[in-house]
Amino acid sequence: MKLATLRLPGRTAAVRVEGDHAVELDAADVGELLALPGWRELAASGAGASHPTASADYAPVVPRPGKILCVGLNYRAHILEMGRELPQHPTIFAKFPEALIGPYDDIVLPAVSQAVDWEAELAVVIGDTVRHASPDQARAAIAGYSILNDVTARDYQYRTLQWLQGKTFEATTPFGPVLVTPDELGEGLALSCEVDGETVQRADTADLVFGPAELIAYLSEILTLRPGDVIATGTPGGVGHARTPQRYLGDGSRLVTRIAGIGELANTARGDG
Amino acid sequence: MKLATLRLPGRTAAVRVEGDHAVELDAADVGELLALPGWRELAASGAGASHPTASADYAPVVPRPGKILCVGLNYRAHILEMGRELPQHPTIFAKFPEALIGPYDDIVLPAVSQAVDWEAELAVVIGDTVRHASPDQARAAIAGYSILNDVTARDYQYRTLQWLQGKTFEATTPFGPVLVTPDELGEGLALSCEVDGETVQRADTADLVFGPAELIAYLSEILTLRPGDVIATGTPGGVGHARTPQRYLGDGSRLVTRIAGIGELANTARGDG
Repeated sequence: MKLATLRLPGRTAAVRVEGDHAVELDAADVGELLALPGWRELAASGAGASHPTASADYAPVVPRPGKILCVGLNYRAHILEMGRELPQHPTIFAKFPEALIGPYDDIVLPAVSQAVDWEAELAVVIGDTVRHASPDQARAAIAGYSILNDVTARDYQYRTLQWLQGKTFEATTPFGPVLVTPDELGEGLALSCEVDGETVQRADTADLVFGPAELIAYLSEILTLRPGDVIATGTPGGVGHARTPQRYLGDGSRLVTRIAGIGELANTARGDG
Repeated sequence: MKLATLRLPGRTAAVRVEGDHAVELDAADVGELLALPGWRELAASGAGASHPTASADYAPVVPRPGKILCVGLNYRAHILEMGRELPQHPTIFAKFPEALIGPYDDIVLPAVSQAVDWEAELAVVIGDTVRHASPDQARAAIAGYSILNDVTARDYQYRTLQWLQGKTFEATTPFGPVLVTPDELGEGLALSCEVDGETVQRADTADLVFGPAELIAYLSEILTLRPGDVIATGTPGGVGHARTPQRYLGDGSRLVTRIAGIGELANTARGDG
């Protein structure tokens, strides 16, 4: 099952995507849907108005997650090629919902940053309330998977020791287009990122050091995870900041982020004002 | 004006605190109140049911802030005594609302941490929507001030380079008891923290490197601040982790956090289960 949040005149709606049509469900967005008891059945059986996907306007798949938890340093091959040891614990930082944009929206380049970079990531969306989750409970708490590009202002990320301020600039982070339930996806998914038609990142999510269920179990030791919460699982090598010369997004840059079985984000970077 | 959120049978309510009574306002909590247009007038004129404060049950003053932005390394004397230079930019990290508890609730010591420490802080609560705020707009966007103890699991804080996981354990962070509007407070406020009757932190908020309005202006360059958002402005010297020997909260530890003109948090630490 594929779910999305569409922008309609004066409102948004959660939809089930079926081929070239999207069927409205009884919730204003996917976050609201996931908070309903029995959401899986409601989503499968909902039969509201139908919209052609070709002309649909997609919002971030969960527009206002209660929490966005991001993971750093989580692709094995990239850590090893950098000469580092594999981490014992996941590196966790935050992003706030103000950063999110729809899967085809423009990325707003902050006027104050000269170093806006890409980070293609598999996103895990939570579908149940979990605390102190066992591995089985953690797996069962996955509503589905989506795509998020953790677009980052590197100059702000490294201004201080804490990355948050470079990670949460307004309207920088495409998220969507759909949430795909786990039954429709295999274990390792091909992930890639293109800038202006050139492939800059390519990896398989099977290479994650800490996988989705392990991250949910770990995080749920710290705090309660709730429906609609999002875990961005980290990015592989190939970011612009690590290149020689360094490369960043500019006005008009075209960023395409793909994960096999989910779809793609396609965004144009635009200067702020 | 002093505002608080009280727990009442089956609900919560925003209240205006007047001496030994609290007058109910037409909002379920202070966060909801601050989101209402004209909240200052509504709060001043509201005249609902009255409750004696002596027997009141206080929730976190804003129970579910949209964002909790925390500042590190922000007291001048402490930075200089550590032999460091004053920072050019504030260090910003996050905390999630699951961490919050009421001003007199028990702190839940995480079973997985052996190093839970205190950090007394002045909290600034946002009262308007602001983006790219000028210094004057930033000052005007302050709804008021409160007290927050940024209780921290040091072992988790330093597991990786990013502090978030040590900062956001469930039910660790007392916040309240009241929000005091800026007209009732002077510039420099005496702040202190006591553990089991011994004063462990003592400072004046005039010693902040980045003051409240400066922080709002800085953060609003990054993203939109909204009513009910909270900025925890950082803690002075005297935390347990920096002592010789190191000192942490244990089962039964009594933590009292005071700011002159606002009041105090008084919390007992309790083992989890």
